[in-house]
Amino acid sequence: MSRPKDASRPQARKPRGFPDKSAAMLAAERELVDAISAVYHRWGFDALDTGPFETVEALGKFLPDTDRPNDGVFALEDDDGSWIALRYDHTAPLARYVAEHRAGLPKPFRRYAAGPVWRNEKPGPFRFREFIQCDADAVGVAGPAADAEMIAIAAEAMEAAGAARGEYQIRVNSRLALDAVMEKAGVSDPAQRGTVLRALDKYDRLGREGVELLLGAGRKDESGDFTKGAGLAAEKAGLLLDFAMARAGSRAETLSGLRQLLAGNNTGERAIEEFVQIDEVLTALGVDDAAAAFDPSIVRGLDYYTGPVFEAELLRPFKDADGNEVRFGSVGGGGRYDDLVARFTGEQVPATGFSVGVSRLAAAMAAEAGGAAVGPVVVLVMDRDRVAESSAMAAELRAGGVRAETYLGSSGMRAQMKYADRRNAPAVVIVGEDERARGVVTIKDLKAGAEAAAGVEDNEAWRNERPGQFEAPCSEMVSRIREIVERA
Amino acid sequence: MSRPKDASRPQARKPRGFPDKSAAMLAAERELVDAISAVYHRWGFDALDTGPFETVEALGKFLPDTDRPNDGVFALEDDDGSWIALRYDHTAPLARYVAEHRAGLPKPFRRYAAGPVWRNEKPGPFRFREFIQCDADAVGVAGPAADAEMIAIAAEAMEAAGAARGEYQIRVNSRLALDAVMEKAGVSDPAQRGTVLRALDKYDRLGREGVELLLGAGRKDESGDFTKGAGLAAEKAGLLLDFAMARAGSRAETLSGLRQLLAGNNTGERAIEEFVQIDEVLTALGVDDAAAAFDPSIVRGLDYYTGPVFEAELLRPFKDADGNEVRFGSVGGGGRYDDLVARFTGEQVPATGFSVGVSRLAAAMAAEAGGAAVGPVVVLVMDRDRVAESSAMAAELRAGGVRAETYLGSSGMRAQMKYADRRNAPAVVIVGEDERARGVVTIKDLKAGAEAAAGVEDNEAWRNERPGQFEAPCSEMVSRIREIVERA
Repeated sequence: MSRPKDASRPQARKPRGFPDKSAAMLAAERELVDAISAVYHRWGFDALDTGPFETVEALGKFLPDTDRPNDGVFALEDDDGSWIALRYDHTAPLARYVAEHRAGLPKPFRRYAAGPVWRNEKPGPFRFREFIQCDADAVGVAGPAADAEMIAIAAEAMEAAGAARGEYQIRVNSRLALDAVMEKAGVSDPAQRGTVLRALDKYDRLGREGVELLLGAGRKDESGDFTKGAGLAAEKAGLLLDFAMARAGSRAETLSGLRQLLAGNNTGERAIEEFVQIDEVLTALGVDDAAAAFDPSIVRGLDYYTGPVFEAELLRPFKDADGNEVRFGSVGGGGRYDDLVARFTGEQVPATGFSVGVSRLAAAMAAEAGGAAVGPVVVLVMDRDRVAESSAMAAELRAGGVRAETYLGSSGMRAQMKYADRRNAPAVVIVGEDERARGVVTIKDLKAGAEAAAGVEDNEAWRNERPGQFEAPCSEMVSRIREIVERA
Repeated sequence: MSRPKDASRPQARKPRGFPDKSAAMLAAERELVDAISAVYHRWGFDALDTGPFETVEALGKFLPDTDRPNDGVFALEDDDGSWIALRYDHTAPLARYVAEHRAGLPKPFRRYAAGPVWRNEKPGPFRFREFIQCDADAVGVAGPAADAEMIAIAAEAMEAAGAARGEYQIRVNSRLALDAVMEKAGVSDPAQRGTVLRALDKYDRLGREGVELLLGAGRKDESGDFTKGAGLAAEKAGLLLDFAMARAGSRAETLSGLRQLLAGNNTGERAIEEFVQIDEVLTALGVDDAAAAFDPSIVRGLDYYTGPVFEAELLRPFKDADGNEVRFGSVGGGGRYDDLVARFTGEQVPATGFSVGVSRLAAAMAAEAGGAAVGPVVVLVMDRDRVAESSAMAAELRAGGVRAETYLGSSGMRAQMKYADRRNAPAVVIVGEDERARGVVTIKDLKAGAEAAAGVEDNEAWRNERPGQFEAPCSEMVSRIREIVERA
């Protein structure tokens, strides 16, 4: 054990909010990404990755959470003096891409993306500062049919992610409908509109009473903090609340309620027509009321949405490592963003998209799956001078399709067996002097051994019997090990 | 076309060195990552991702290229006042991970990683500031057998990446051998040692004469820039040059040359013994002289290596988009880094690893593969009021296993056909009023159509004949389209 001369050692600690990801977590992420990407691909989208960095001005300020340095992004100065930041979603960079390459792109342009995005937020449990998002976007598509297809894609993506029909729901609203109800309520000041939208957005969490306070004078939360309200009179607040609560048992019923609420308002009639067309295409695509509902309480925080918006809610609860039920709520969302490309070019390009957050889902799936995966077969090394022999045997196993490694630590037999247990190895292979002389190997089936041990009282007798342990000719090593691995 | 009021629009440009990645590029990357990860997994390594950021002090200063701001990394200040940086490789973060969790890890600890790393370097052609690396590391393994296995893994990874035996070579050297020859040459000053190593590292590029100048007085390059040399006398420089050129036709021949060169030096004898043991395990693993050679000119820039070092060289040239041959040289490398965990803990933990750079390789593979992938079948929309019908037909095709989309732009028939061509669609489906009345669909086989068009002189006659176009009953749409897609 040598010690470096420098006593001022760095601390072995990780920046907060960026968890190390285990094999189980990575496998769950990969499985979700592959399944969801396959849906997008089947619907005609092509993969495109726009890279981790954009200029700060290209990203724009669209994040809902702006109480952080750099407005919620990780930004730094490039060596040419420009400021660049890690993407916080896939949509803003896509707008830059379309603006940069629009002459050469097919019209419409359909792309999907699967990769990390970064948010400079306060980290917390299940709240990561890096997470994987899988997005599909259609650019150059106007009209509710495109939004309806995006909602259908969202439903299919949820099912590909393992949520059966009935275990998830896509909840759909429209900025047009929100505009209409605010018009009817006489809310025209942009700041007041913002306060109203933030209040409605909390309907799921705070219920009718909480939102009522936020639309009126304001609300004091459990901690005693006071949030100033929109200051609306009771009648106006009532209209907005009725709107937010208009979701009924089916899309048709919700629509009929909204027709009454928004009657006599032009914007409202356009909103209703939009909902009708969305419903028609959803129905043609087999997306029933269980899969997609109209829900006027959906707002979506991102500032760039201009039309229909929707959220994918996971209804099925997951069990965490301690067996407690975890409800996820929204795991994805999307909507229409017709002005995002125009930020760059001045020309409006209608677009709609959907994004599902994979990392939280994967963490839940990995926690629920539990249990260690089967490890490699370990070829022990009895004599360090003959390690090449063990290496060759492990190579023979791998060539025979068996995951296998040579023990390359410096410890003796007991530690090697402990290592094999630790790795959840199905078997170990041992060649000592005696085996070598007789042209055989000793194979220990660790699962059979453990099962036998569990059923035996007399430890001494058991040890002499060595259950699960047997000899095999070298020529049969691979086939005997394969039998064990297939049972494991 | 609405125009936003704000005239000061952001520029649609990308930060340099972070290329947008096409579907072909992403597919090539994914294929390489999967193939190489499968090799690592088969050898008993488990996946672990340590996340994008580390504290700057945990990363340490090991990069060879330090002529950039922040010493070649992308760094920023976190909101708790600590400085964090994007990882520049997978090895330094692994050392942090092992130091942080060492009590709970299996010993040895074998992990693999596949993900992006970031270097704040001057971007250039095929020189990206983000690239994917696939690493395997074994921690807690001392002795040359572990290095030999790592070299064998490197060879297998190259073959999994598509390079046949003979199209790549793993070139192996040892810091011990480099120490030995510098001892014999009397080079003991650390700065002079650094100059000597940098000179030897350029042997591939500059040849014997170039390196001779860099070991002596110095060298003026083509641009007129002068690089100061190590200032060694001719005799000492001669010994170092003989060493760097000692690679012979086989590992055994190279070893016999090195034995002579390093004779009478203790360090040299230990280096020879190390090479002998590596050779023995490589031979047991079937890694022949074509797959792995001893090459004393290999240095490896990273400062943290302490023992055997090796590079994976791709010998087979690739063709770029213009048909020119591109030689890649080194696409990966690795070696022993026994002191990296001790930076944190003070206790030496022997470790060895290998890393292959996937992004450059993938770019080459994507360029060589060329050609557009087959696109989706496009269901045209003749009447915007009946878009739901087209949506349902596309859904039917997808349910039948066919990649398909509805045309959701706002253009007419000609533009829709142009779009289908642009997407490399195998076929389009058309339902006009006439077809609807008769319960049929019109299918255009675009490949058959294009082939027929190429063989026809009389454009007018051809247009009337409409080759590749036929009608089918709605009930046969999926099966007829499938036939076309399978031929495409």
